[in-house]
Amino acid sequence: MTGTTPATDALDLAEAGAVLAAEAARFAALGWMRGTSGNLSLVLSRDPLRLAVTASGRDKGELTASDVVLTDGEGAAVGPGRPSAEAALHARVARLTGAGAVVHVHTVASVVMGRRSPEGIPFEGLEMLKGLGHPTHEVAVTLPVIANSQDMTELGDRLEAALTPGMPAVVVAGHGIYVWGADPREARHRAEVVEWLLELAAAGG
Amino acid sequence: MTGTTPATDALDLAEAGAVLAAEAARFAALGWMRGTSGNLSLVLSRDPLRLAVTASGRDKGELTASDVVLTDGEGAAVGPGRPSAEAALHARVARLTGAGAVVHVHTVASVVMGRRSPEGIPFEGLEMLKGLGHPTHEVAVTLPVIANSQDMTELGDRLEAALTPGMPAVVVAGHGIYVWGADPREARHRAEVVEWLLELAAAGG
Amino acid sequence: MTGTTPATDALDLAEAGAVLAAEAARFAALGWMRGTSGNLSLVLSRDPLRLAVTASGRDKGELTASDVVLTDGEGAAVGPGRPSAEAALHARVARLTGAGAVVHVHTVASVVMGRRSPEGIPFEGLEMLKGLGHPTHEVAVTLPVIANSQDMTELGDRLEAALTPGMPAVVVAGHGIYVWGADPREARHRAEVVEWLLELAAAGG
Amino acid sequence: MTGTTPATDALDLAEAGAVLAAEAARFAALGWMRGTSGNLSLVLSRDPLRLAVTASGRDKGELTASDVVLTDGEGAAVGPGRPSAEAALHARVARLTGAGAVVHVHTVASVVMGRRSPEGIPFEGLEMLKGLGHPTHEVAVTLPVIANSQDMTELGDRLEAALTPGMPAVVVAGHGIYVWGADPREARHRAEVVEWLLELAAAGG
Repeated sequence: MTGTTPATDALDLAEAGAVLAAEAARFAALGWMRGTSGNLSLVLSRDPLRLAVTASGRDKGELTASDVVLTDGEGAAVGPGRPSAEAALHARVARLTGAGAVVHVHTVASVVMGRRSPEGIPFEGLEMLKGLGHPTHEVAVTLPVIANSQDMTELGDRLEAALTPGMPAVVVAGHGIYVWGADPREARHRAEVVEWLLELAAAGG
Repeated sequence: MTGTTPATDALDLAEAGAVLAAEAARFAALGWMRGTSGNLSLVLSRDPLRLAVTASGRDKGELTASDVVLTDGEGAAVGPGRPSAEAALHARVARLTGAGAVVHVHTVASVVMGRRSPEGIPFEGLEMLKGLGHPTHEVAVTLPVIANSQDMTELGDRLEAALTPGMPAVVVAGHGIYVWGADPREARHRAEVVEWLLELAAAGG
Repeated sequence: MTGTTPATDALDLAEAGAVLAAEAARFAALGWMRGTSGNLSLVLSRDPLRLAVTASGRDKGELTASDVVLTDGEGAAVGPGRPSAEAALHARVARLTGAGAVVHVHTVASVVMGRRSPEGIPFEGLEMLKGLGHPTHEVAVTLPVIANSQDMTELGDRLEAALTPGMPAVVVAGHGIYVWGADPREARHRAEVVEWLLELAAAGG
Repeated sequence: MTGTTPATDALDLAEAGAVLAAEAARFAALGWMRGTSGNLSLVLSRDPLRLAVTASGRDKGELTASDVVLTDGEGAAVGPGRPSAEAALHARVARLTGAGAVVHVHTVASVVMGRRSPEGIPFEGLEMLKGLGHPTHEVAVTLPVIANSQDMTELGDRLEAALTPGMPAVVVAGHGIYVWGADPREARHRAEVVEWLLELAAAGG
């Protein structure tokens, strides 16, 4: 934790925990974090890279500000608590994309479409694509689909290879979606847009 | 702002902002304003035409009374704030139809049906059509579908050409719906009816 | 209002209005009363027959205890306020079936299934049928479907002809469902069961 | 009630009632306990086996801490109140599996899939299976489907014969699901996972 005092870090972590708990409660209410699935993260510092990641195995609709773990740039715990194994993927997304926040949720539509379009899910001519930063609906983009793995290095390699300009998201087949943004609010808005697109595609639209 | 004092206008705008924030929160809760999509407007005066339009780029479930912009009859800002580019279309709907409120939301069913029925979506023999002002279910009406555009003049021309008596709504293909009424409550009720009809059609009913 | 004092009636009506407002808010939250659609009623007295019926044209999620009209056994207003035209059908259901409460809502699944099965919607071997009073799932029942009409006498005649033992509900094609029970809670529970059955059937189950 | 004092039992039962009421309100809000359907239970003691089971015939979104019945290991009432007939099945699940809590809900997707796959519903390669205790998504499991019966001994025999390692749940055809866990929270999380899997399967995913 070079360059920051423990006290400041502790405060940041609790603040981040409160933000992530509120975000998780929203996603849980949408049915995107059933059981104890999914996890959210927020970048606390860039140099060194430190993330607040939601604690593993908790009900995502009932998190409190303390249900959060501080991790390093590899997703390993720095201090108390056990992060999700997927913290390593959150950290890698933050390193690769510069994102300040990462959302990982398990939605039915993402699994339906990952199975139906394992080579990637094409979207074209949709106004909603502007919600991912495109200036017009007149674009054609592909939401990448990568195979699942319990090995976070392998999964991260697949995610890195699949990264697509103009698409701040990846579907993990049989699993769910990763979506990222500059901060938790942008990551949430983009997650909502990506899920809307997936529900449209699943409905045959 | 001929004929009204700035103070009155300021008050009206804040009141309108509070009304639109409450309306937007309802639509957001229904999942019709995912990301930061959609926008709502309310006519403040007719001569000259002045509208309160929701501010661009905000989470539509978190608007406050001040997240609103005053525009003229062309949808250009009058005073501080940046309206959505689509404010021009809201203003045009108000001019063309005499509506006092316009709802624009992004629903999955509207995009599904706009793709399936690009020439217009027919509805016949449905009691719910009475919610659009028809005295009986024994009517046949068509919900127009127009092509999308980022040029609001072009989009407005298409909307004007598509206006259909007895149908206070238009589907913009690949985009969403515009629905209007005398005031925000009537516009909301009609939006609910139009979306109900679209969900019925999307379900094959 | 033979046999009751005006004061008592006034009280009963306000109490009934509060109950119906609470019930309507539940159904509205489920999306079964979009726009201002649907109406609910409660029998206040049997001899003479008097019903409290929700007022016409109001948002069913925003009713107050005073948004209710007192009607006679034909559904005509007794005192101030305008009941829905469908009050006559509520009153007829109360006369025909002895029900103490009637629920009329517009659900997408009922219109989908009314179109798919215009001769009646069969259900067999479902545990949920016990929620309509059957002692076992080993029954086969049909939910009647009748043609819609704006003439409440005609619609009532069709409903009377369609009444089926063991099925406290009727689908009106292109319109919605009528469901009844001894009191508002039983009517609500049965409406939930009937809608569950319709959603199952619409899903091909 | 060997080994415990009546006072302690009474307290435990009220506490259990409060927990079950809160759990039931969650499931009711999800639409999984329509009408008065479904029931929940919690094991109060193992020797002798005593369960708190939700009272029969109540609205599951409106339970209070006292809407609960104490039953023995056969599901028969110990003290006041009438448990659901299905209490016998809850008790049998607790005996057979060692579960501390059992969830029984009526979901549309479970009935759809029970009809479509009467020999059992296969799931393979899904991350969500980790929510049922599997260490990886690389497993193939089957959610058993058993025929319905009003005879709880017969239904229990079928459930016992269908019990599958790694699958703390059974679908009762035409009826709903039973899901269990060490405590009400784990049972809830597993019920959410099982329903997610069923919704995925029903969506063709």
